[in-house]
Amino acid sequence: MTTSRTLYSLCGSDSSRPFSPHCWKTVLSLAHKGLDFEERPLPFTVIPTVEDGFSRTVPILRDGDQLVSDSFEIALYLDEAYPERPSLFNGEGGKAMARFVESWSQTQLHPAITRIAVLDIHNMLDEPDRLYFRDSRTKALGRPLEDVVANRQAEIAAFPALLAPIRRMLSFQPFIGGTSPLFADYIVFGALQWARITTGADLFSENDPVRDWFEGCLDLHDARGRSVTAA
Amino acid sequence: MTTSRTLYSLCGSDSSRPFSPHCWKTVLSLAHKGLDFEERPLPFTVIPTVEDGFSRTVPILRDGDQLVSDSFEIALYLDEAYPERPSLFNGEGGKAMARFVESWSQTQLHPAITRIAVLDIHNMLDEPDRLYFRDSRTKALGRPLEDVVANRQAEIAAFPALLAPIRRMLSFQPFIGGTSPLFADYIVFGALQWARITTGADLFSENDPVRDWFEGCLDLHDARGRSVTAA
Repeated sequence: MTTSRTLYSLCGSDSSRPFSPHCWKTVLSLAHKGLDFEERPLPFTVIPTVEDGFSRTVPILRDGDQLVSDSFEIALYLDEAYPERPSLFNGEGGKAMARFVESWSQTQLHPAITRIAVLDIHNMLDEPDRLYFRDSRTKALGRPLEDVVANRQAEIAAFPALLAPIRRMLSFQPFIGGTSPLFADYIVFGALQWARITTGADLFSENDPVRDWFEGCLDLHDARGRSVTAA
Repeated sequence: MTTSRTLYSLCGSDSSRPFSPHCWKTVLSLAHKGLDFEERPLPFTVIPTVEDGFSRTVPILRDGDQLVSDSFEIALYLDEAYPERPSLFNGEGGKAMARFVESWSQTQLHPAITRIAVLDIHNMLDEPDRLYFRDSRTKALGRPLEDVVANRQAEIAAFPALLAPIRRMLSFQPFIGGTSPLFADYIVFGALQWARITTGADLFSENDPVRDWFEGCLDLHDARGRSVTAA
C-alpha cells in the first residue's frame, strides 16, 4: 500500500526555499520517523485555499485520510500513528517538557529572530504575500517593519546570549533529547533554520557549542536541513 | 528495616529557614517519592566537614550506605533506587529535557535572583559564613554585593518577563511535567522558593498564572514548601 503523504509548508517567490520554522520542525519529524512525503511549499495567501481551508497556518500534514495542522500536534500524531518507528518524545515526560522547550523557543528566540529577519522575509515574498505580510506583521508588532529591524545589528550581537540555556545543556549531553535528537531539538532547530534561510546573520558566538549542535542538526536525516542553502 | 536517610541542606543563622534552591529541589524529590528523611540544614562553612568532606556543596543525601550529592544526580539516583515509586522524570525523554529546564533556570532565573537577593542572603548568615559568602560571591560576581543589588528594584520589575516560557507553557498544561509535577517543576520551584525565603520581593506579574503554579507547588506533598514562611 502506498500512502499519499503531503506536507504543506511555506515559501516566498522561490518555492525551493521553504523557510517556516514550524514547517522545518515537521520536515525533520517526518524524516525522524522515516516517513516519505511530498513537500508542497505555498505562499502565505494560498494556504487558506488548500484542503478546503482546513487551516490558516502551515504546516498541514495530509496523511492518507488524516489531516493535521500545527507542528506539535503533528509530532504527537506521528508518534501515535507510527508507534513502531523511533519516538519523537521518548515518553510522557518528554512529551510534557517538549512543550516547555517550544514555549522557550517561541517567547525567547522567535521574537528576536523576527526583529532581525522580518524585512528579509518580506523581501522574499511575491507581491500579494508582501501586502498581506506587511499589513499583518505591522499590526502584530505595532510599528512599521523598517522600524522593527532598525536595531538589527544590536539584535544580532545580543542573540548568542539567548542561547545560554542550550549552551549549558550541551555541557551535559549532545542533544536536548539526550544522546540523540528528539522533537525538542527540531523545535529549536526550526527557529535557527528559519533565521539561516531568511537572513545572512551569524547568530552564534565564537567557538559556540550551539553552532556545532546546529550544524549537527543540519546533517541529520541525509542532511535534509542543508537542502536549502543559507541566505 | 529502617533506612537512615539524611538530607544535608543549607541554612543561615536560623536553621529553621533552609533556603538553598538546590536543596529545595531535593526536598520535593524525596517527598515525591514518598521517602522519609531527616533534613539537617548546615551553614556554608560546615558543609565540608560532614560525611568526611564528601562534597563542598549541598544537597548531600545519605541513604543507608549510599552517599549522593547534586540535586539532579540525587533525582536520577532516587528514580533508579526506587523504581516502584512515582517517577521524577517519566521516561528517558523527560530525563534529557529536565536538563534543559535546569539549564534554563540556572542561566536565566538564578542570575536575576542573585542580583535581587544576594545581600539578603548575606544578612541571613552567621559571622563565619558572612565572611566566606561575601568573599566568594564578590569574586564570582566581580563587584561588591552592595553594587550587585544596586538595581534591585529594576531587577524585580524585570523578573516577570523572565518567566514567559513557563507562562506560555501553562496555557497548555498545569505542570512542566504535564498533568502532574515532575523533577522539572521542582527545579523551577527551587529557584522561586529560594527567592521567596530570602527576599520579600514579589516576582510575579498581576494575575500571573505562574504565581498560581508556584502556589500549587507550595501546596504539594503536605505543603512541604510552606514549612518555611516567606521573608
